[in-house]
Amino acid sequence: MEELKSFYFKDDILYILDQRRLPHEEIYFEAKNINDVAYAIEDMLVRGAPAIGCVAAYGFYMGIKDGLDVDNVYNTLYHTRPTAVNLFWALERMKKACLNQKNLLEEAQKIEQEDIQANLSMARHGASLIKEKSVVLTHCNTGALATAGVGTALGVIKELHKQEKIDYVIADETRPYLQGSRLSAFELLKANIPHKIVVDSSAPFLISKGIVKAVFVGADRIASNGDTANKIGTFMLSLACKEYNVPFYVVAPTSTIDFNAKSFEDIPIEQR
Amino acid sequence: MEELKSFYFKDDILYILDQRRLPHEEIYFEAKNINDVAYAIEDMLVRGAPAIGCVAAYGFYMGIKDGLDVDNVYNTLYHTRPTAVNLFWALERMKKACLNQKNLLEEAQKIEQEDIQANLSMARHGASLIKEKSVVLTHCNTGALATAGVGTALGVIKELHKQEKIDYVIADETRPYLQGSRLSAFELLKANIPHKIVVDSSAPFLISKGIVKAVFVGADRIASNGDTANKIGTFMLSLACKEYNVPFYVVAPTSTIDFNAKSFEDIPIEQR
Repeated sequence: MEELKSFYFKDDILYILDQRRLPHEEIYFEAKNINDVAYAIEDMLVRGAPAIGCVAAYGFYMGIKDGLDVDNVYNTLYHTRPTAVNLFWALERMKKACLNQKNLLEEAQKIEQEDIQANLSMARHGASLIKEKSVVLTHCNTGALATAGVGTALGVIKELHKQEKIDYVIADETRPYLQGSRLSAFELLKANIPHKIVVDSSAPFLISKGIVKAVFVGADRIASNGDTANKIGTFMLSLACKEYNVPFYVVAPTSTIDFNAKSFEDIPIEQR
Repeated sequence: MEELKSFYFKDDILYILDQRRLPHEEIYFEAKNINDVAYAIEDMLVRGAPAIGCVAAYGFYMGIKDGLDVDNVYNTLYHTRPTAVNLFWALERMKKACLNQKNLLEEAQKIEQEDIQANLSMARHGASLIKEKSVVLTHCNTGALATAGVGTALGVIKELHKQEKIDYVIADETRPYLQGSRLSAFELLKANIPHKIVVDSSAPFLISKGIVKAVFVGADRIASNGDTANKIGTFMLSLACKEYNVPFYVVAPTSTIDFNAKSFEDIPIEQR
């Protein structure tokens, strides 16, 4: 199995896997300037909160390198997607690095490397929560396609599989964009992890029947009180887990926490 | 607006609207014998518990008319779909009529007429439950396409609209077969009732936000303790309504009650 990369940077070009075409075609879009990067985020060629943050960092570098004004660069990337806070976190960090005259390419690469390390750390921590071979459920895609590394919630599941603690994975298809059936199933297949795809609305029923032993999801943004915004459908899973006493885990790096948001009320939600 | 009919009987032919082709094409399949009728039920040209019951009654008549043995007729139709109990109810009634040498065509027509009347009665009763202009939510299709008349849950909504108590209807798209976006939206459009289609998994969130004032759904089968089997996704709606204190109404004729089933455990569930 070749390692799956949602993006990679080489010779001043950011190669971004066009996830709209998965699983049928694996085509990398060549982003050569900030506008290409903004387009890739806005049009969902790249998605997943951590991956968006990393890609935006490279976009920031490209904009400054091409002689654009720092506010212009910041604003161009700022308005691409509203909910994933990693985007704004990465932009703030790049802006600060820029004002401190740091090497911006190195800063972007550092953000990417840190995400890879955070993924591995989350995978280890998350996997320690499950003791026996289990059926686990996940929603949307939170793997290599959504991050720079192995993923958040799906990273945990990959680690669980390595530790032989996965019976099979139930992946919600994740309407309307099908990140579960198109992307998670694609990653699970590549990683040889047994899995079943189900329609989103069946998940609460499967939880009520005691089939699902734990739910792992990612997050677009976490408020400082713990309120979490994530793909539509996450809420019904938490509701079912609460009713039937099934553990519900949100897996995310610290860059997904918005300390400025007191609660859910302060998180803008993207609607499609 | 022409009245929508999921089926009609004329000159010894049962015309069955092929709902698999809706909303793009309105084509009636001509069922000329019991095998045509069994195919139409099994392949989901016709669906909806009450409509299945009516169509099966006409199929029974056709089988006997063509000289088939009563057990053969009964069994051919019995094995078409497992969950909707109206099918078995109609077959029992036709079998009894057959043994009593009644006119079987008249008996089938009586079953159809009774369903039309039951629909009107349910619509009246259901509409009395809502006092103010409201946003209501429904799942799957429970209208004229699912019955012989105006429908069960959607019949209530049509009556509410007549009484000017509908702000708008939220129709779940209803995966995997899209009965909401293909069929309910089609009916609501024909009846000029304002509506929005949403992905199934967003409904619990909309309920939690206080947007939805009541949920109306149909039933495939109701056990004698009140446990109800219906399209996947119905369960999560009831869970959300319970958590947020929103009225949840199941609308069904008495033929949908299975007095032999003590609880949910006794109801076979169709899986696709």
